[in-house]
Amino acid sequence: MTRAEATEAPEVTAGARRLYNSAVVVYAVSAAMELGLLDEIRRNDKVDLVAFATDNTLDRNIVSAIADALAAGDVVTRDPGSDLVCRGGEFDGVDHASPFFYWLTRGTSRLLSRLPDYASDRTPPTQPDEDPWGRDMRAVAIASRTASERFFNQTLRSELAGVDFTRVADLGCGSGDRLIMLLNMREGARGVGVDIASPALDLAHEQTGRAGLRERVEFFHEDVTTMPARPEFADVDLLTCFLMGHDFWPRDTAVRTMRMLRDAFPNVRHFVLCDECRVPEPFTLDSTIFTMGFMLAHAGMGKYIPAIDEWHSVFEESGWRCRAVVPSGVPESNVVFHLTPLER
Amino acid sequence: MTRAEATEAPEVTAGARRLYNSAVVVYAVSAAMELGLLDEIRRNDKVDLVAFATDNTLDRNIVSAIADALAAGDVVTRDPGSDLVCRGGEFDGVDHASPFFYWLTRGTSRLLSRLPDYASDRTPPTQPDEDPWGRDMRAVAIASRTASERFFNQTLRSELAGVDFTRVADLGCGSGDRLIMLLNMREGARGVGVDIASPALDLAHEQTGRAGLRERVEFFHEDVTTMPARPEFADVDLLTCFLMGHDFWPRDTAVRTMRMLRDAFPNVRHFVLCDECRVPEPFTLDSTIFTMGFMLAHAGMGKYIPAIDEWHSVFEESGWRCRAVVPSGVPESNVVFHLTPLER
Repeated sequence: MTRAEATEAPEVTAGARRLYNSAVVVYAVSAAMELGLLDEIRRNDKVDLVAFATDNTLDRNIVSAIADALAAGDVVTRDPGSDLVCRGGEFDGVDHASPFFYWLTRGTSRLLSRLPDYASDRTPPTQPDEDPWGRDMRAVAIASRTASERFFNQTLRSELAGVDFTRVADLGCGSGDRLIMLLNMREGARGVGVDIASPALDLAHEQTGRAGLRERVEFFHEDVTTMPARPEFADVDLLTCFLMGHDFWPRDTAVRTMRMLRDAFPNVRHFVLCDECRVPEPFTLDSTIFTMGFMLAHAGMGKYIPAIDEWHSVFEESGWRCRAVVPSGVPESNVVFHLTPLER
Repeated sequence: MTRAEATEAPEVTAGARRLYNSAVVVYAVSAAMELGLLDEIRRNDKVDLVAFATDNTLDRNIVSAIADALAAGDVVTRDPGSDLVCRGGEFDGVDHASPFFYWLTRGTSRLLSRLPDYASDRTPPTQPDEDPWGRDMRAVAIASRTASERFFNQTLRSELAGVDFTRVADLGCGSGDRLIMLLNMREGARGVGVDIASPALDLAHEQTGRAGLRERVEFFHEDVTTMPARPEFADVDLLTCFLMGHDFWPRDTAVRTMRMLRDAFPNVRHFVLCDECRVPEPFTLDSTIFTMGFMLAHAGMGKYIPAIDEWHSVFEESGWRCRAVVPSGVPESNVVFHLTPLER
């Protein structure tokens, strides 16, 4: 390259810098959430980083570098050279959304980094006990639980306010937190949890035990889409299924799975199905939180995410009537379908 | 949570959305660079995604999802439902900076996702042939080579314009590209490459062979900071060392290493040392590209990055005089020190 050519080369623009630095801030938010730094700032408005590192047996330099990156995004403010960080202008919004940041980076970054491999049909090596897509499923479960607490559970509770149920089955029950919440809503109600991930079920056993609910709940280690009907399903009157309905798709298998659920739970009266839906609008940097990362990750895994209309096209054909569609608020592309069984 | 409390909860703010979505765009840029999509858009201004996927045997849905994320950052424009993408307003700046995006995501995301482990002194498992920090060192080498071609080599060539050399040693030679460039600058000059990473040396052997320079270069598989003096070093008159000088630090080991280099290369006349330097200003989203991610990653690895002044404090003590300091331009925190040996 000659000097003349160098002069004509493009510049690294402000836009490129902001994209790059924003990505670094997101890693820092994710780390600060896991290390409890966000909790500490939320409680106290200001935190001494040296005391925080000492109290939590953490490396001071790493905590300091994380704080510098948080300050770049105005998540905290920090005077140069000071160990004190204060709540920044973006703190509340970023802290509130932090489970989605955590899902993206700690949970899903390896998958997203490897998109070229998946696009080229190369399968990068994973260790035997790892997720085949390289995700950190513990982080995904934590993100999912925290997001449920902050965003979905209130919608679910509202939707069930006028609904009687005595036995609930949660499909894709994960850590068991939703079952615990549901059983605590109705005295004497019993629960069934189904999940494909045994580490999640171990956690669910533990959590329900700690909540004093072990006698009221049974767990099955099964793939929801292929599980057999069971005697324990016979008197289930409420089905819930959060953030896994897209695994039923493409359409033909979704129809088959939804019909199977109708048959496997013959006495079900309500089915609350909550999932991310494909949105028709193009994405921008101002798009709803979570959705774009969710879509890109699922494209990488070859999984189809249906739009609301596609879901509607499936319900009647598979034995369900849609009684209500409730936006869950955050993420905005997340929708709760309240279904009831069609008469046969 | 009651309804009243839910109403009082913070919102996911525009700032949080932009941070999150920017991070997703960065993954997409990194993938688009590796898959050759950025090259294609640079050459042709517009690309048909279906043809591109077919020609390169790529999964169409993944390529399409990557393009949607690029469009969110205005890196490309895409009409809804169309397979045609065009150069967007941010294309030139982002494309130019793409090796840094690639370094961040494909190269370093696993390390950055695991900051909480390193802060807590937990060592996550890696496979035997993996980088201990979980980095993808092939991606790091590609990012480094591409960044050198775009940003550093011109500075190096300018700095060496009036310098005679007949034998050059490149410390941390990586893929060998810099040695190839240097040997092509001076007819008959010979080269020595030293690197700690054997995969990089394999690549360097291959590249120098392909460049017809195999007879003119020797490689040594060594840690630069602890290597012994060698007969092959005796007539080296030019030393170069790019993007690894920070590995000499902390200060006492930097002094020792710089003094050792003075002794191990007794006839050296010029030493061109190029590295990222710690900047005193706090980071913002508008900070120079690369630096904040580089600082966070090195904090995670427990590595110290010296400031320009700290480098200056070391030179004379270890037998070197700083003849010039040249900012390499991009990243702005990257500096070229042109050193000459002090008389003893």
